[in-house]
Parts: sequence; structure tokens; C-alpha cells
Amino acid sequence: MAVRVGVLGATGAVGQRLIQLLEPHPEFEIAALTASESSAGHTYQEAAKWRVDSPIPDEIGEMTVTATDPDDVPDDVDLIFSSLPSSVGAEVEPGFCEAGYIVSSNSSNSRMAADVPLVIPEVNADHLDLLEVQRDERGWDGALVKNPNCSTITFVPTLAALTEFGLEKVHVSTLQAVSGAGYDGVTSMEIIDNAIPYIGSEEDKLETESRKLLGEFDGAELNQNSMAVSASCNRIPTIDGHLENVWVETEDDLTPEAAAEAMESYPSLDLRSSPDPLIHVFDEPDRPQPRMDRTLGNGMAIAAGGLQETPFGLQYNCLAHNTIRGAAGASVLNGELLLENGYL
Amino acid sequence: MAVRVGVLGATGAVGQRLIQLLEPHPEFEIAALTASESSAGHTYQEAAKWRVDSPIPDEIGEMTVTATDPDDVPDDVDLIFSSLPSSVGAEVEPGFCEAGYIVSSNSSNSRMAADVPLVIPEVNADHLDLLEVQRDERGWDGALVKNPNCSTITFVPTLAALTEFGLEKVHVSTLQAVSGAGYDGVTSMEIIDNAIPYIGSEEDKLETESRKLLGEFDGAELNQNSMAVSASCNRIPTIDGHLENVWVETEDDLTPEAAAEAMESYPSLDLRSSPDPLIHVFDEPDRPQPRMDRTLGNGMAIAAGGLQETPFGLQYNCLAHNTIRGAAGASVLNGELLLENGYL
Amino acid sequence: MAVRVGVLGATGAVGQRLIQLLEPHPEFEIAALTASESSAGHTYQEAAKWRVDSPIPDEIGEMTVTATDPDDVPDDVDLIFSSLPSSVGAEVEPGFCEAGYIVSSNSSNSRMAADVPLVIPEVNADHLDLLEVQRDERGWDGALVKNPNCSTITFVPTLAALTEFGLEKVHVSTLQAVSGAGYDGVTSMEIIDNAIPYIGSEEDKLETESRKLLGEFDGAELNQNSMAVSASCNRIPTIDGHLENVWVETEDDLTPEAAAEAMESYPSLDLRSSPDPLIHVFDEPDRPQPRMDRTLGNGMAIAAGGLQETPFGLQYNCLAHNTIRGAAGASVLNGELLLENGYL
Amino acid sequence: MAVRVGVLGATGAVGQRLIQLLEPHPEFEIAALTASESSAGHTYQEAAKWRVDSPIPDEIGEMTVTATDPDDVPDDVDLIFSSLPSSVGAEVEPGFCEAGYIVSSNSSNSRMAADVPLVIPEVNADHLDLLEVQRDERGWDGALVKNPNCSTITFVPTLAALTEFGLEKVHVSTLQAVSGAGYDGVTSMEIIDNAIPYIGSEEDKLETESRKLLGEFDGAELNQNSMAVSASCNRIPTIDGHLENVWVETEDDLTPEAAAEAMESYPSLDLRSSPDPLIHVFDEPDRPQPRMDRTLGNGMAIAAGGLQETPFGLQYNCLAHNTIRGAAGASVLNGELLLENGYL
Repeated sequence: MAVRVGVLGATGAVGQRLIQLLEPHPEFEIAALTASESSAGHTYQEAAKWRVDSPIPDEIGEMTVTATDPDDVPDDVDLIFSSLPSSVGAEVEPGFCEAGYIVSSNSSNSRMAADVPLVIPEVNADHLDLLEVQRDERGWDGALVKNPNCSTITFVPTLAALTEFGLEKVHVSTLQAVSGAGYDGVTSMEIIDNAIPYIGSEEDKLETESRKLLGEFDGAELNQNSMAVSASCNRIPTIDGHLENVWVETEDDLTPEAAAEAMESYPSLDLRSSPDPLIHVFDEPDRPQPRMDRTLGNGMAIAAGGLQETPFGLQYNCLAHNTIRGAAGASVLNGELLLENGYL
Repeated sequence: MAVRVGVLGATGAVGQRLIQLLEPHPEFEIAALTASESSAGHTYQEAAKWRVDSPIPDEIGEMTVTATDPDDVPDDVDLIFSSLPSSVGAEVEPGFCEAGYIVSSNSSNSRMAADVPLVIPEVNADHLDLLEVQRDERGWDGALVKNPNCSTITFVPTLAALTEFGLEKVHVSTLQAVSGAGYDGVTSMEIIDNAIPYIGSEEDKLETESRKLLGEFDGAELNQNSMAVSASCNRIPTIDGHLENVWVETEDDLTPEAAAEAMESYPSLDLRSSPDPLIHVFDEPDRPQPRMDRTLGNGMAIAAGGLQETPFGLQYNCLAHNTIRGAAGASVLNGELLLENGYL
Repeated sequence: MAVRVGVLGATGAVGQRLIQLLEPHPEFEIAALTASESSAGHTYQEAAKWRVDSPIPDEIGEMTVTATDPDDVPDDVDLIFSSLPSSVGAEVEPGFCEAGYIVSSNSSNSRMAADVPLVIPEVNADHLDLLEVQRDERGWDGALVKNPNCSTITFVPTLAALTEFGLEKVHVSTLQAVSGAGYDGVTSMEIIDNAIPYIGSEEDKLETESRKLLGEFDGAELNQNSMAVSASCNRIPTIDGHLENVWVETEDDLTPEAAAEAMESYPSLDLRSSPDPLIHVFDEPDRPQPRMDRTLGNGMAIAAGGLQETPFGLQYNCLAHNTIRGAAGASVLNGELLLENGYL
Repeated sequence: MAVRVGVLGATGAVGQRLIQLLEPHPEFEIAALTASESSAGHTYQEAAKWRVDSPIPDEIGEMTVTATDPDDVPDDVDLIFSSLPSSVGAEVEPGFCEAGYIVSSNSSNSRMAADVPLVIPEVNADHLDLLEVQRDERGWDGALVKNPNCSTITFVPTLAALTEFGLEKVHVSTLQAVSGAGYDGVTSMEIIDNAIPYIGSEEDKLETESRKLLGEFDGAELNQNSMAVSASCNRIPTIDGHLENVWVETEDDLTPEAAAEAMESYPSLDLRSSPDPLIHVFDEPDRPQPRMDRTLGNGMAIAAGGLQETPFGLQYNCLAHNTIRGAAGASVLNGELLLENGYL
């Protein structure tokens, strides 16, 4: 029997992607949609300016949107997917956890909190055990799990595949799609025939989230990975798909061949949304490319290519679909992991 | 009295920009236009598919195009601007030099030859003296001077401003405009809603040309700069303007403030096409941007911004107009330097 | 048992789409792939620069490409899909027909020939009977069927739905995607931040093909529709999906409501690739839009919207996916019609 | 001595263009800049998010912005340029006129009012005499003159050149740049790889404003032109430059040659911003194009091309720079006309 789920911030860009992924999902059943006060009481059809490239599923369009409040969500909902602006997430997510809901959140608030697991299932599923610490400390019946930022998710799986070589230094330059900023985040006059070498707070997210994701949980505490990371982030005129240039220096020798093998053999999980292979490595030097490769593995795969030696270690490029693997799909996958691990 | 000049490859994309810059230039007078055999004998108007955003100057349109052969160029022409595919350049440029012409070339052939000066006037004007070595060795009456690749020109002036701090390691990621590949170089289906993380031979150009440009000429030999450079090159959907993310590690401490001051105070030259300031440093973290800033200094300035400290030294972004400062304008400026130094 | 089919021009842009559609098709089995002499003898993987957004099917990648010659195609192939440059099509298609193959062709040659059926199955399936005339006249065992140009296919189904009102005058302005020109047809420098108000021969195709498609076949001869059509064609920076603005003046009164009902109730066919509904009519005035709506009905539906009264009759907009419904899918659908009608 | 002028809505997209055009203008001197209450009291540098591709002039950057109120504008200002949202324009412009200011406005409010001249100087300068009627009726010391909408300005001059042939029916399809919607008007996710066949109220503006512009003022009343116009408007991914496809049916025979001659010989005016020729007619069938031709005549020329006969009269394409000729430059030109006619 499917787990009944709710979507917080259901009318937003990631909220729409969540609905697109959850509606046909056999393990989940959408039972609640929340949005801002002004949308509450309207049907989803009325409340949402639907922009995803498949029509609104009929039953979803007719559901009534509620306010984003635990009291307005039916009691038989067990799992909450949250994709809210971080300030709103910080305000309302704890209330849902106190009220007993398991929350799989894409919002950026609390990602770096010591007792909040930040999880990419294929990378650090064991961090989920932090929830015991979280419940002890916060006295929650529910729980709060986060997925990382879209640009972080793009390169961390490739680094995870290389940890055995001893990660030391990572430089990363990003070429990010406009959808990462939300529907209204980048105006057309800002970006057509242009690029913007700055995305507020983004560089910090890549640098800190990556070290937490690749850290070790000893049962009581999470110790961050000791590698040093420096990111430079750019917005470019693509719709979907973040492309990243990575240099990684490792303790042990690392050839492009060994790196390709480590990436290609890096295991996926036996979860519905985890693609196999997780990392697709291209031989062609001009791949991956956003428009060509963002839908690999239904948008859940990581693509890598251009592996080469440089004076500063290995250089390669990687790519992921930022609103699927990097946001909505990341939350859904964490939901599947929570189900697998008995939290639901 | 104006120096009479010829343009080799006058119908190509850079050739058109050369004409646009040379036609109003008070020190130069266009006296010869060459192109492939099939264009020879036609008027320029007939031969060129003009694509620059100002009309063909009338007198130029009526000039007759000749083959790219020293015998077809009038004897009273002194200076040749060359923008040919490198294989053609390698074949025909030596013949012009032997025939006594001074050649300022944008073609990539011979850029790394030991006796060919590769020059950005504001950076290494003194390398021009290599021409004495060149004439001795080759027995030419003429001479061959090269300007670097467009993506090299974009970041080298900013590094030149920092040499006093002792350059050690440079990582650079580029976001390059489609015009850098020539008019037919990138199809629309390749690049709309996309990015390509590979440009053939480009990374090598940034890595080797930069070390030559910042090297020292001791009167007999050119010693390359000892810094190590690694480049990762990307094509993005912009028309003009290469944007680059740079990390530089130096021997001495280098704060963003000191770097900004060094860049802003880096001298321009008293040549007509050299902008003042040479390097424009933005305080706004989201600048420079291609569409907004590529025309600074009539397309001849370098823009920089986003200076910040990282675990790996200084990080910043820089930008230049790739077909003006990075190609046609670079050749014209070298022509002005040759004139200033008595070669014409 | 599946019909064995061959694809002429299999490495081209439409050829690749044909393979993408045919490979999973239960009624057809790809048994031959042809291309130019230089590709013959290589595997398809080697010969094609694959650019479709799903990987090359494994078995297809390993097939050996042959020259485009009936002698090189296995005898047990019954149906040929052709997508060749029109000059090549004009040269080789008749040979295949003589050799007994049924050819469903997207190439523009012979579309207006009096004995060649030009068919959109949902619009004029009865024109297929022209093949009897064709075989009589040409003495072929095989047969040649054409689908119209992509921009013609976009608006003709909507006109077909309105024929009962008496079509008199049609003005149509097109906003066409770059893929319609083939992979190398439009350079990025031509179209980024630009539009081109001209596509060679395109206007004529809309004007003449539409009148043939909506004409009447009396068993012996095809009488063209008497409406007058004037087209103005533009290329814009979209990847896929032709959008068209149409004004239609009719003999009888035609309200937007009546037109919408006629379009929505216009029947699809019981063929695998014919979508139901054929024409999707939007209420939202700002639809259809290329990126949002081109994949309706797996890229085989026609989208319409913005229906309104004007001083010059009905005005509306329509859209179709130009490389699926407008090219590869159109040929496949004609193949299905040929199968249904006993030609295979 | 220069006329002192004020700019209402100086921080907006058109306001910035107005400053760019007025600052170097020898006949006008910027003496007042107004914006919303929240900007008042700040320097222009602080208040404006400057987005034009030339730096803010120094003196302008240091001016203090005031509220948009006649009491806050110095008394020695004579001419007001207004580019406000129409609801704001409707509210504040009459107050400026009452207070004695001459207002040249780009805002869409009151354009169709019977006593408000809607003027393109080269087309209907004589309509300026409507100001006598306006002053009589409204008792203003000041006066209100409007320029039309950007998409109207693009095609009306070409129609004006053809009036002698007797304009009867006009169909026009527009391909409009994103800057026409203001800086935040079109998001990148709406328009990259897309087109939108709808711009709110735009079609009505082309249809009604064109008939007023080409109407006749008999000294007392303005009689609209009797032609019928139907417009279909589209937004496409270009930054600047509206391209339009026009069909025009005339009473008298009109060949493409006669039309081209009428357009090319249509007179410009002896005003500083009026280009000569006003209309540039291209022979090349693929011109005009937005990126190539929008800066003709410093952005003030109209470009036309593709003239051909159709079953429905003459078909051609035209283009103008929407934020220069279509907005800021249009207002400045009306200011020059007001000066020439003794209103200042």
C-alpha cells in the first residue's frame, strides 16, 4: 500500500517537478498539497501556474490546496516533501517534525546543522542514522532529512567514487542552468547572449555541503571530510542541467583510466529512482552536454567526461539535471531511502 | 602619411573585423585585400558575406580581391594583417616575410616558435626585439609577429599585473562565445540551450601561450615563465566576449585588495588602440558579464571582478571581447607597436 | 510479424529521428541503413554523429551502413523510409520504386507531381489511391508516397478541420525552429539574439502543398483546393517546434467557438502514431508555445490556441514538433497507413 | 542654450535609455530625475540598477532622484520626458501639464484620447496642432504629446510611405524582443528555446494607434485612417529589435518596385535624431534581421526588406530598435519637434 505524502510549496517550480515525479510513483500517493495563504482553498489547477512540460494530472488539478501548516494536513499523511524558500522552510519545517511527520526537504535551511542528515542515498545513506541523534536532541516524533543544493549534487557523486584515492584539493567551476534560480529567478534580459559569474551563496554551498556529504558518521557525530574545496559559480543561458569543470588532487596517484573505472563501477542503490549506472562516463571529449545528457537515467544519472591529467591532478567535467537529480528527484529518492529504512 | 596595409583572409570573420577597425584608422590605409582563389578577381562586396554590425565601407566594397600571394599585393604595401586558418597561414606567411612584408598575424601557426615574438603590447612589448633574432636566423627582410589566441589574451593581462607577487599556479575555466569559432564554427543545434565542455586544442593554447607571453627575453633567447597553468574550456551560447574564472596561487601573499590595485594601476600604452585603463576592475560581484562589458574601451579593455580569497589563493573572473581585443584588435595593436618601434 | 524496413539517409538529422521512432516500433523492424558512399561499410555507430537526446540503440549502432542503392539493400526489405536532400532523393528514389520497394519519403522532390500522393493520414488518407494511377503511369512494382514539409504539416490539419466552412483566404506567418534546417543548416552566429525573415523555397511549399493536401481525388485526378494561401516564413532561436500565426477567411460565418469545436472534434485515426486528440485546443491565450507544447501526443499532436475574430476572419496560432510530426513521424505514420491499406 | 529637461521614471529600462540619449544631446540638459517614493532622496547611482551597455555618466550618477511630483521638479525645467507604467502615467502626467510642463510621453495611457497628439514626427508632425485643441479643452499651460507603442512605430512609417496607393487592409505578425516588456517583463524560463504567441493588449495597440497616426487632422478634429488592421503578436528570444511581417492591400496597384521606391524616398526630417534615410530598404531577401540591423541610423532608422507580391497584395518585413526608435528615441524626437515648433 502506498505511503500517503504531502508536498509543501506545491505550486513552485520544484513543487511542480515533485508532483510530476510523485504522481506516477507506485510507493507514494499524493494526499496533501500546501502553498501560501493566498492559494489556500483553491484547487491546485487554479493556484498553480503550471510550467512543467507534461499536463497537470487530472486528480491533482482538482485537489484543494491548503496552507502550509501541520494542522491543515490530514493525519494519515506520513511523509512530507518540502521545497520552500529557505526562510519559510526554517519557520515551518520544525513544526511538521514536532507534529510527527517525516520531512524530506530540498530547502536550504538547516542543511549544515550537526544533527540533520544531508543525504545523497548512493553516497552516504549511513548518515541517515543521524536521525537518532536528532530525535534525542529535539524530542521529535517526526524527522528532518535534507538533500543538498543542485550544484553540490552534480559533482559529489564523482568525488565519492574517488575517495579511495584520498581527496585533497578540489577546484570546481560551474555552468548552471536558469531553472536553478526558480521560475522568476533570472530575467531574459539578464541572460540572453550573456553569462553571470556569480550566484549568491552558491559557492559556499558547494564548499561546505560537499565536505559534510563525504564526511564520516561515527554513530554519535558527523566528521566532515578534510578535503579543501573552492568553487566559482556561473549562470549561463541553458534551461536545465548544471555542467561543472572539476580539478581534483589526491593523495594517491590517480590516472584518468583509474578514475573512469572508479566512476563507472560506483554502485547505484536498489531504490526505484536510483539509476544504474549511477555515473555515466563518456569517452567523447565534448560530453557531457546539458541538452544532450541531462535526461540520462530519467534525469537521475550523473554524467562525466573529458577525464585528463593536468599539472594539478585529474581534470574532468560532470553534469546532472538540476531540477530532477538536483532537487525534486533528490527529495523523492531520500523518501524512498526513508521507506527502505523503516522510517515510514 | 598613413602606412599602406593589406589584409590576408579579408572575407573571414576576423578579416571583416580587421576592415571595420582599419578603415577609420588614421595611421593605416587599406590597400590590398586577399582571399581564396575562388574570390580573387571579384569586388570585396561580391566576395564577402558581410556579417559585421556596420555596413561595408563604400570604397572597401568596390576594391578587387586578389589571391593570397605576395606577387598579387602591390609593392607599396608595407604591413600585412593576417587572419588565416593556421594551415594556410603556415604555408603563405613565410612567403610574405621573405618578400619583405612586415606581417602582424592572428593565425595560430608558429605562435610558439622560438624566434617568433608573441606579443600583447601592454604585457611584453620588449619581446618585439626577438625580430632581430628572427631576421638573423631566417634571412628575411620582412618580419612575423603574432598575437595570442583570444582566450589567452583574456586572462594574461590580469596575470601580468600580478607577476610581482610571484605567479606559481593558475587554474582557469573559460566560458567562450561562439564567434571565437568563426562564422560557421558552431551550429545553432549544438549550442542553443546547451554548453560544450571542449574546444579542440584550446586548453593547450592557454597553457603554453601564457607562459611564453610572461617569459623573459634576455636579448638572445626567450625564457618561458615558470608558473604552471591548467585550463578547462567551454563553449556557451553567447555571441561575443570570453568570460574566464581564474584561481592564481602566488609566492607572496596576495589579498584581493592588493590584486585589484595592481590590476587597476597596470599601465596601458600610448598607442591608439590601447585603452586607459587597460584593466577595469568591478566592485560588483556579478560583473564582468559578456553582453554588458565586452565593449569597454571600444572592445579593447580587459574587465575583471569578483576578487576573493580561497583555500587556493586568489580567485577572480575576467572578460575580453574575443574578436576585437582577442583577434582583430590585437593584430591592429601589434601593427601600431611595429610602427612606433620603427619597423615601418 | 514486423515489416522489414530500410532507412535512406540514416545518418542525417531526420534519419536519426526515424531510427529513434522505428527502433521500438512493433510493426516495423530496421533491416537496412544507407548513407553516402563515404559512410558505406562502416558501422552506424562510426558513421553517424548521433545527436538525438536518447542513446543509439545497441543493435542499430552495430549495423553496417550501405550505399544508397537498391542493390545494396536486402531483398526482404519491403518498406523504405527516405529522408534525403531533395536533389539526391530525386535521383535515387525512382530506382527503389522500380526495384519494387514501397517508399515513404520526407524528401521534398516530387511532392507536387500529379501522380504522387502527398499525404497526412488524418487529413487525406484517400489520396493514397493515387498510387494506382502512379503504378499505371510509371510501371512500378513499388510506390512513392510523400509527406509534406514540416511547416505545411503544422497548419494544414487545423485548416482541414475548418473545410466545412468553405476555406477562401489564408495568411500564415511562421516562427520556425532551427532543427528544420538540418543539423548544420543554421549557424549559431546567424540566430542567437536574432531572427531571419526568410527560408529559401519555404513559403512556396506552404502555399502549394496545402492546396494539394486539401484537394479532392476523383479516382483519376487530384483537384487542388481553391483557397488562396500566402505565407511569410521566419527562423527563430528555438530548437524544435514550429509556431504559426494563421488568419483564415471562410465562405460561411466562423466563430472562434465553432472553430475550436471543429478542431477539437476533428478525428484522429486508428494508427499507432496518430494521437488522440489530433488537435489540442488551448483556452489560455498565450499557448501553444514551442518548448511547452511540442511533445503533446509524443510529438505527433497539433496544438492550437488564441482563436479570435478579426476584421479578416478567424485568427489563431498553431504548433507542431517539426522533426517528429513534421518529418520523421510523418513518414512513419504514412508507413503505418500503407500497411493498413495492404500495400505491404 | 539647452532646454532643461526632466525624466519621469528615470530608473526604469526606458528611463535609462532616455538618459543615455539625452546626456550627450546638445539641445537638452538633464535637470531632474524622478522615480518612485522609495528611490527619492538617493543619488541616481544608488537608485538605479543600471543595465544599459555604456556606463552611467558621472554627473548623472551623482544627481539626487526626487519623487514623481511637479512640486519636486525645479521650476526652470521646461520639458518632461515620461516613461511610466500606464497606470502611474495616467495619474501623474496631467498634474505636470497643469503645472505648465510640456510632457513628451512614452507611457501608453491617453494615447488614443481625442485631444492628445500621438506623433511620429516623420509621419504626422502636423498632428502636433492638436495641442491647441487640448489646451482649449483642458485649460493647461503645459501640454501632453505621446509617441506610439514600440511595435506600432516599427510598421507605421512603411505604411505612411504607401498611403498614396490607398491603404485598405493590413495584416501584421510581430516577432518582438524581450526588452519591449521591460527589464523584468519576461523570465528566462519563459523564453529560452521558446516563443510566446501573445502579448497582452499589444495587438489592439497596433490596430488602433496605426489608424490614428495615419489619420487626418482638419484643424479641429482628428479623423482616423479608414484602413483595417489585424495584428498577431509574438515574443521571441531576442534582446532588442522588433521584426514584423506585413501584408498590405491597396486601392491602386502596388508593385514591390514601386513600394521600395516609395519607402526609400520617404523623407526624414531636419531634426537631430531623425535619420536619413528614414527607411532603409534591403535587396537581400533575408534582411532585415534584429541583431544585424537594429542599430541602423543610431537605432532610429526603420529597415524593410523582402518585398514581394502575393495573392493578397504586397508582403514585406520591417524592423526597428524597440527601445530606441520604439521608445526612448521616439520621445526625444518628439521633444525635438516640440522645440522646433516653438513649444519650448
